[in-house]
Amino acid sequence: MSYAGLLETVGRINDVLNAYSILNWDARVMMPPGGSETRGKQLATLAVIAQSMIVSDDMRRQLDAAERETAGLAEGSVERGMVAQVREAVGYHSRIPAELLRQKTELGSVGQEIWATARANSDFKSFAPTLEKMVEINRQIAEAIGYKAHPYDALMYRFEPGETAASLTVLFDKLKAAIIPLVRAIGQKQQPRADFLERSYPEAAQLGFAVDMAKVIGYDFNRGRLDTTVHPFEVSFTRNDVRITTRFNKSHMPMSLFGALHEAGHGLYEQNVDPAYTRTPFATDLVGLYAVGGVSFGAHESQSRLWENHVGRSPEFWAQHFPAIRAAYPEQLKDVDEAAFVRAINRSRPSLIRVEADELTYDLHIMLRVDIERQLVEGSLKVKDLPEAWNAKIKEYLGLDVPNDAMGVLQDVHWSSGQIGTFCNYTIGNVMAGQLYAKARETPAIASAAKAGNFAPLRAWLTENILQHGRRYTRDELLVRSTGRALDPAPYIAYLTSKYSEIYGPDRKGN
Amino acid sequence: MSYAGLLETVGRINDVLNAYSILNWDARVMMPPGGSETRGKQLATLAVIAQSMIVSDDMRRQLDAAERETAGLAEGSVERGMVAQVREAVGYHSRIPAELLRQKTELGSVGQEIWATARANSDFKSFAPTLEKMVEINRQIAEAIGYKAHPYDALMYRFEPGETAASLTVLFDKLKAAIIPLVRAIGQKQQPRADFLERSYPEAAQLGFAVDMAKVIGYDFNRGRLDTTVHPFEVSFTRNDVRITTRFNKSHMPMSLFGALHEAGHGLYEQNVDPAYTRTPFATDLVGLYAVGGVSFGAHESQSRLWENHVGRSPEFWAQHFPAIRAAYPEQLKDVDEAAFVRAINRSRPSLIRVEADELTYDLHIMLRVDIERQLVEGSLKVKDLPEAWNAKIKEYLGLDVPNDAMGVLQDVHWSSGQIGTFCNYTIGNVMAGQLYAKARETPAIASAAKAGNFAPLRAWLTENILQHGRRYTRDELLVRSTGRALDPAPYIAYLTSKYSEIYGPDRKGN
Repeated sequence: MSYAGLLETVGRINDVLNAYSILNWDARVMMPPGGSETRGKQLATLAVIAQSMIVSDDMRRQLDAAERETAGLAEGSVERGMVAQVREAVGYHSRIPAELLRQKTELGSVGQEIWATARANSDFKSFAPTLEKMVEINRQIAEAIGYKAHPYDALMYRFEPGETAASLTVLFDKLKAAIIPLVRAIGQKQQPRADFLERSYPEAAQLGFAVDMAKVIGYDFNRGRLDTTVHPFEVSFTRNDVRITTRFNKSHMPMSLFGALHEAGHGLYEQNVDPAYTRTPFATDLVGLYAVGGVSFGAHESQSRLWENHVGRSPEFWAQHFPAIRAAYPEQLKDVDEAAFVRAINRSRPSLIRVEADELTYDLHIMLRVDIERQLVEGSLKVKDLPEAWNAKIKEYLGLDVPNDAMGVLQDVHWSSGQIGTFCNYTIGNVMAGQLYAKARETPAIASAAKAGNFAPLRAWLTENILQHGRRYTRDELLVRSTGRALDPAPYIAYLTSKYSEIYGPDRKGN
Repeated sequence: MSYAGLLETVGRINDVLNAYSILNWDARVMMPPGGSETRGKQLATLAVIAQSMIVSDDMRRQLDAAERETAGLAEGSVERGMVAQVREAVGYHSRIPAELLRQKTELGSVGQEIWATARANSDFKSFAPTLEKMVEINRQIAEAIGYKAHPYDALMYRFEPGETAASLTVLFDKLKAAIIPLVRAIGQKQQPRADFLERSYPEAAQLGFAVDMAKVIGYDFNRGRLDTTVHPFEVSFTRNDVRITTRFNKSHMPMSLFGALHEAGHGLYEQNVDPAYTRTPFATDLVGLYAVGGVSFGAHESQSRLWENHVGRSPEFWAQHFPAIRAAYPEQLKDVDEAAFVRAINRSRPSLIRVEADELTYDLHIMLRVDIERQLVEGSLKVKDLPEAWNAKIKEYLGLDVPNDAMGVLQDVHWSSGQIGTFCNYTIGNVMAGQLYAKARETPAIASAAKAGNFAPLRAWLTENILQHGRRYTRDELLVRSTGRALDPAPYIAYLTSKYSEIYGPDRKGN
């Protein structure tokens, strides 16, 4: 009964972490303005309760007993895997003082409000003191956790276990060597026409089409819902309740469409974790204190980017769905054919805002953020010097001048909410998506179905190889099992090179 | 620091109880169908955590120390009041096994689904086993809590402290003696015209008008929101976030209007509790494990019924707002004058469904439920015999035959969610509303403003005398302080008698 008792305790921790996520969702989607002050305290209390349950004496006793009870089982068995994950989380959280966690959670809740005002006024100075506190709390947490080479490694651990400042340098150097020349080459070419994406698209029609496309890729509305928020996101409260949001720009239709595909891609991950793992360590990030089935933030992002970009921007997808989008927007797309539409949604050019960046330049936005975070955490860059450093990086990577901090260093919510060390996940997601997509398409049935616009076999392959396993295997274990290799940027680079050569090839004129 | 530490602990319990309420609101308003199974576990876990925080050794130590620290303060001081409430809750919860609480919460979550299906099919038998379990758990809880005269007293305590089976018998006898003859007398009279309330009223217009009327009586949308649900309710997550719902029937407009006024009345209570009491025992029902500022369910109901009925159905209110409702529904009300409208919304006749009952017959629905609950809890009535007992009571009190169980014993959600002992609150609310309203109108400025359709002075009086105090004083202490008497049905009976004599008086013909 010790193992069963341990699982019941983990189930209750999962309940508390799901409650945390529900309060967070509510704060972002439903809460009236007056509620924010006390909501921050509620979130902090739940986080500290979850942590205290992990490090409690009861938990340690149950864990010791469960280890003894499962010692005879095969290595790699579900039971031993679950117990090992609890052991790791107990060790991790024993090192982090509860007071630090409470401070971080409360500051993260208040910080988002301060940041939102600062961004609205493009006033970095009003946000700087909060950011300084946040960096300091994160440095203290890094010291508490401990690290071998760099404090940034300790912070990244809860988002992308296995990656380090050093490993990212290797990965990013390869990506930059491929992407920057592609971006420069495209800069010389004529851009395809995309004016029709900026016509007036009524919100109700956009919402309807976003729902349709989420269903098309397999997102289950019986266990989910789609709402509107300023910043789109996905969050789950067990696989039974997986919610997504998108946002609408009346005169930029792709925002809602690709926002919905992206978040529905995240949603597919959670909705397809093995139901037997519900409320267990394989569907609970006990280290990150987050009730999630995806095994790392990068692995999660691989699913959202795969459905948004590899599928959602592919000619095959639109060969199937272009009639539907033209039916949804008959006036707006009346002078547009399928080929022009696909070129328009794949247009690439350097821009200032990460969340609006195209597929090719997106990783440059990520890499500059990781550079900066690393320097902030190690102390070689001061918060007050951040805008200058930011603007210099944008110039270096994208060749652009930043007109104001709202369009620059103040654009992202992450730091204000207390998250440092999580930007790399986006690029790791892109790389992993490229790797998975290339491998899946080696299966003839998947490739030929995809060519006919049918991605159900692809989804089945992803469920089989990635989604169903939840947190049982590490990200690289999943990659090795499914593709034969750990994280490897070669397929992603090949994909970008081929795709953009096709769109901007020597024969391609603007149309 | 012990007193401050105790308050911080209570603040965290308040956070957990608010999280519980948010999960409950979400389950009723937002959750996709798939989410219900795991949501029940999440709710149960939070309830048990809150209880375990109350009975923890830490809490007992803090409480002992806080009692010593505040012993020198005046009796009746805020500090001693808060400490005393914590002491009481520790004693109460020490008697209830956590396992019983978990079972009740989980069964309450699942039970609502079973009940909803049973009601949809008018199939009492499919709900009976769940109800049997629920009665049994409640009996066990009553035994654990302990009681002097009747197990029902123990169950009512968390909803309406001070009331007992015996005290309700006295109260109800007085009410029945007054109400039943009034109902019979009206049965002989001609009914006023009310057909125009059943015309087609578009939902969007109903929603807009419901929001306007909630604002008119003072509900603050900056700290609230109004949604649509099958069963209207109010719930708060501190005074900063107080939410209400209503429901719409296209061909019965009063449902949304009076539903909104009723729930906004509840909302006013929570929104006007002294902000200094936020996260303290004076805004946390530590006995009932409910983050609420209102001092009893009956006191809460006094506010909703006061605004719904005494104000919202009064000629004075419509002297002010009839032009607005006619502007909202120009077609539907074009052949209706103010006097006819007021008579129509005050029409009384026996009916089967409690939540659709008029003001005069409403208490009869309550009293029969209390009779039945009392018998269920003492064991003199078996669950299997419930429909028969129900139908007999409806015949006795209202003179009606019940055509099926959906219109009878299956109509209310309460029992399925685990609540037994809470129906009396509605009638106590009516009685208390009558008492407060009569007293407030003895102040000339309040009466003359009300006659001009201005109820702001009334709201100020209620805030001063009732709302701001939160849970500092008991219900009867509040009544004695504000009206000079504990709960007393005389003003309510006088109000009903006068009102219905006016509407159905000897000179009144139907129009």
